Amino acid sequence: MTHGTDTLGRPPARLRTLVAAGLLAAVPAMPAAALTTEERAKRGGEVIRSLNNGQPQPTLERMREEFPFLAEATEAYALGDVWSRPGLDTRTRQLAAVAAFAAIGETAFMKIHAGYALNAGVSEDELKEIVYMVTVPAGFPRAISAARTLSELFAERRPSEGGTP
Amino acid sequence: MTHGTDTLGRPPARLRTLVAAGLLAAVPAMPAAALTTEERAKRGGEVIRSLNNGQPQPTLERMREEFPFLAEATEAYALGDVWSRPGLDTRTRQLAAVAAFAAIGETAFMKIHAGYALNAGVSEDELKEIVYMVTVPAGFPRAISAARTLSELFAERRPSEGGTP
Amino acid sequence: MTHGTDTLGRPPARLRTLVAAGLLAAVPAMPAAALTTEERAKRGGEVIRSLNNGQPQPTLERMREEFPFLAEATEAYALGDVWSRPGLDTRTRQLAAVAAFAAIGETAFMKIHAGYALNAGVSEDELKEIVYMVTVPAGFPRAISAARTLSELFAERRPSEGGTP
Amino acid sequence: MTHGTDTLGRPPARLRTLVAAGLLAAVPAMPAAALTTEERAKRGGEVIRSLNNGQPQPTLERMREEFPFLAEATEAYALGDVWSRPGLDTRTRQLAAVAAFAAIGETAFMKIHAGYALNAGVSEDELKEIVYMVTVPAGFPRAISAARTLSELFAERRPSEGGTP
Amino acid sequence: MTHGTDTLGRPPARLRTLVAAGLLAAVPAMPAAALTTEERAKRGGEVIRSLNNGQPQPTLERMREEFPFLAEATEAYALGDVWSRPGLDTRTRQLAAVAAFAAIGETAFMKIHAGYALNAGVSEDELKEIVYMVTVPAGFPRAISAARTLSELFAERRPSEGGTP
Amino acid sequence: MTHGTDTLGRPPARLRTLVAAGLLAAVPAMPAAALTTEERAKRGGEVIRSLNNGQPQPTLERMREEFPFLAEATEAYALGDVWSRPGLDTRTRQLAAVAAFAAIGETAFMKIHAGYALNAGVSEDELKEIVYMVTVPAGFPRAISAARTLSELFAERRPSEGGTP
Repeated sequence: MTHGTDTLGRPPARLRTLVAAGLLAAVPAMPAAALTTEERAKRGGEVIRSLNNGQPQPTLERMREEFPFLAEATEAYALGDVWSRPGLDTRTRQLAAVAAFAAIGETAFMKIHAGYALNAGVSEDELKEIVYMVTVPAGFPRAISAARTLSELFAERRPSEGGTP
Repeated sequence: MTHGTDTLGRPPARLRTLVAAGLLAAVPAMPAAALTTEERAKRGGEVIRSLNNGQPQPTLERMREEFPFLAEATEAYALGDVWSRPGLDTRTRQLAAVAAFAAIGETAFMKIHAGYALNAGVSEDELKEIVYMVTVPAGFPRAISAARTLSELFAERRPSEGGTP
Repeated sequence: MTHGTDTLGRPPARLRTLVAAGLLAAVPAMPAAALTTEERAKRGGEVIRSLNNGQPQPTLERMREEFPFLAEATEAYALGDVWSRPGLDTRTRQLAAVAAFAAIGETAFMKIHAGYALNAGVSEDELKEIVYMVTVPAGFPRAISAARTLSELFAERRPSEGGTP
Repeated sequence: MTHGTDTLGRPPARLRTLVAAGLLAAVPAMPAAALTTEERAKRGGEVIRSLNNGQPQPTLERMREEFPFLAEATEAYALGDVWSRPGLDTRTRQLAAVAAFAAIGETAFMKIHAGYALNAGVSEDELKEIVYMVTVPAGFPRAISAARTLSELFAERRPSEGGTP
Repeated sequence: MTHGTDTLGRPPARLRTLVAAGLLAAVPAMPAAALTTEERAKRGGEVIRSLNNGQPQPTLERMREEFPFLAEATEAYALGDVWSRPGLDTRTRQLAAVAAFAAIGETAFMKIHAGYALNAGVSEDELKEIVYMVTVPAGFPRAISAARTLSELFAERRPSEGGTP
Repeated sequence: MTHGTDTLGRPPARLRTLVAAGLLAAVPAMPAAALTTEERAKRGGEVIRSLNNGQPQPTLERMREEFPFLAEATEAYALGDVWSRPGLDTRTRQLAAVAAFAAIGETAFMKIHAGYALNAGVSEDELKEIVYMVTVPAGFPRAISAARTLSELFAERRPSEGGTP
C-alpha cells in the first residue's frame, strides 16, 4: 500500500483532490437541511471511508450495538455534517482537529485524525509542527504525549520488513 | 486598512508570500541553535509585527516591566521559535492555533491568533469552520464561546463609518 | 403560565408530566432517523420553548445570523436530538446537565440549564445539592463559582417588588 | 445476587427506599455539625457499603495505609458528608455524579459511581442517556470514553455463564 | 497595614513562625479525628484570619447564607483540615496552591492564595517564579493570565499615596 | 545557606547543596539573554542530570530522534531556562511543579518531578501534603490519582532486597 505520504514535505495535490472529490461525491446534491438523519449517517459512513482508506472506523462499529444513539450522532453529526463541510480543505481541517485533540489531551482521538490527515496527504513533518505548536497553548505534557502518540502511529504505518503496513 | 481578506474563500497567495518573506527576512541565516535568546527575542518581535500588521502586541508590552522572563519567553520561544518555524505555512499554523485555543477555552488568546490569521489572508468563513469543528472534540460551550469571540473580532475590524472591509 | 417552582422541595409531578407531554407533542410520530435536519431543528425550537417558558433562547438567536451552522447544530442536535430524547425525565437530565456544566467550569451554560431545571419543577434546594456534590469530582473553585452563578439566577427570578416572576 | 437493575426502565421504588433507609439509619440523630470526623468517617463507611452492595471500596482501602488523610477525607467528607445528604435521592445524585465525572474525563471514578447508581436501581438505559447528554457540554471524546467504560461495567456485572456477577 | 512582605527576597522567619504559632494555637490539643465539624469550622475560621491579616474571607461570608453546606465544607475541610495541617510550612503550601490554581486557570482563587502567601512572608519575586514555572505544565495562556492577576494583586496592596509597602 | 530540611524524612541537606552547586556551575557567568539555544540546551542537560541523580531523562532521549525541536525546547526552555532559574530553591519549585502537574491530571509528569523533588531532599511526607492540598483546587479524583502515582514511585525507589534505591 502506498498511502501517498510525501516524506519530503508538501503532500501530493493529486491525492488531495481525489479525496476531496470522494467527499463531494458522497454528498447528495440537495441542501443539507433537507437530509434525514439516516441520509446524514450514510454520508458520514462515506466520509469515514474516504478518510480511512476505504475502511470503516472500528471504534464506531463497536459502539453501534450498545450505544446506538452515540454511534449515530458521531456518524451523522461529527462525520456526516462537520467533516464533510465545504469551506476548508480536508488537510487543514484535519490538522486543526489534531491540534484541538492534542491540546485537550485526547490522544486516542488525535491518533485517529492524524491517520486521516496522513491519508489525505499531510506529511509526518507537518503533523510534528502541530505538536510543536501545542506547547504554547497547552504546555509541554500535552505536546510530549501527542509526540509519543504520533511516534506510535508513524511506526504502525511503516512497512515492517518487506511487507505492508 | 486592507488586510486582504478574500471573502470568497482562498486567501490571496501574494499576501501570504509576502508575510512568509517577512518572516524569513527576520531570521538570520544561521542555525537556530546558534541564536542567543536576545536574537531569538528580536526574531519574535519581528514575527509579531509580521503577524500583527506592523504593530507590537499590547499584552506582551504590558508584561515586559513586571514579568520580564515571561515576556522574554513568549517573545523568544512562542513567537521567535515556534511561530517562525518553517514546515507549515502561516495560515495553517494559525488556524490550528485557533482550534487549540478554542478547544481549551482560552478565547482571549484565540482572538489574538484569529486576528493574525485574518492578517495572513485567512477568510472569516474559514475561521467559522474551525469553530464548527471544535464542537466535536470539545463540546458546544467551547464552540459557542469561540463563535462569540470571533463575532467581536470581526466587528472590531470592520470600518465603522462609510466604508466596506 | 406559572412554572410552578415548589420552593418547599419536590416538584409538582403534574407539571413535569405536562412538560414531558409538550416535548412529546413536538416530536413527529416517526422514527428519529427519518427526520430531516430542518425537522430536527424545528423540534429543537419547540424543545427550547418548552424548557424556557415559551421563549426562544437569546444566545441561539444571536448566533443564527453569523454562525448559521452552529446555531442549526445546537438546535437540531443538542436541543432537537439530545434534550428531547425519552429514557430520562426532564428534571433528571437537566440536573445531570447542570452537574456536567458546573464540573467543567462553564457557568454561563450551567445557568441556562439551571433555569430550565427550575422551569421543569426542580427546586432551588435540589440545585444546591448538585453544587455541593461538584466539590468531590471537580474541587472547590468550580463548586463555588457554580454557587455564585445560581445565586444570580435565583435573584433574577425573584419578584422584585410586588410582582410575579 | 440480584442487584435489582430493572432492565425495562424505571428502578424499583422499593429497593430505592431500602437504600435510602439504610443511609438514614447510618446517620446518628444529631446535627451534622456536632459529629466528629471519626463519626463522619464511620458514616461514610456505612454509606459506601449501602451504595456498594455491602462491600467496602477497594480504592479507599488501598489508600488507607499510605495516604491516611486522603482516605479519611474521602470517607468523612465525600462519602460521609456529601453522598449522605438529604435533599436529593440517591438515584439522581449518582446520575449527576456520573455526568460530572464523565464530563471531566475521570472514567475510573465514573465507573464506581455508575456501579452505585445501578445498585440504587438506575437502569443501564438511564446511564446511557447521561453519556449521550455529555456530548453537548464536553464533546464526543469524553462521551465515547464514558460509553466504553459503561460497556466494561455492564459486562463485568453480567452473569457470565450460569454464574453470578 | 504592615503585612511583612520582604521585598528583597527571603521572608522574615519571625513572621512565619508567628503565623505557624497562630495556626497551632487554633488547634485544640486533641487528635483531629475527634473534632466535630463545628470545631473544625471554628479552626478554619482561625486559619483564615491567620492567613488573611485577621480578616474573614468575603467570598466565604457571602456563601454562608445561601449555600451553608458549601461554606461549612470550605471552612471545615479546605481551611480547617487542609490548610492547617502540619508537615509543610505555610509558605510552601501556599506557593504550591498558587501553582495548582494557576495551572487549572482559576485565577480568582489563585489571587486569594497569593495574598495569603504574601501575608506569610513570600516575596513578590517568588510568586513570579511560580508563574514562570506554570508555562511548562500548563502552557502560556494560563501563565500569562496568572501574571496579570498577580499584577492586580500587587497593585492593590501597594500604598497609594506617600507610604511604603 | 541551609534552610533546615527536616531529618524526619529523607532529605540529606548535603545532597541538596551539591545539587544547587551543580546547577550554578552549569550556568555560564553571563546574562541568560546572551546564551545561544545550544548553550541553553547544554545547561538543561546539566540541570536534568543534577535533578536526576546524574542520569539523563529517558523520555527526553526518546524524543530526540523523531521530535528534535520538542526535545530541544524541553531541554533549553523547560529545563535550561525555567528549572535553573534563581529566585526559588529547587525543593519549593519542584513541590509547586508537583502540585501543578497533579492538579491538571498529568500524573506521568508529576511522577518525574516528584522523583526530582525526592532527589533534592524533599521527604515522602511533604509530597503527600501536596496531594492532600490538591483536593481543594482540583477535586478528589485528581488527588487520588496523584496518590496512587506517588505510591508507585515510592515503591520503585525502595531497596527491594539488600540493595540501594
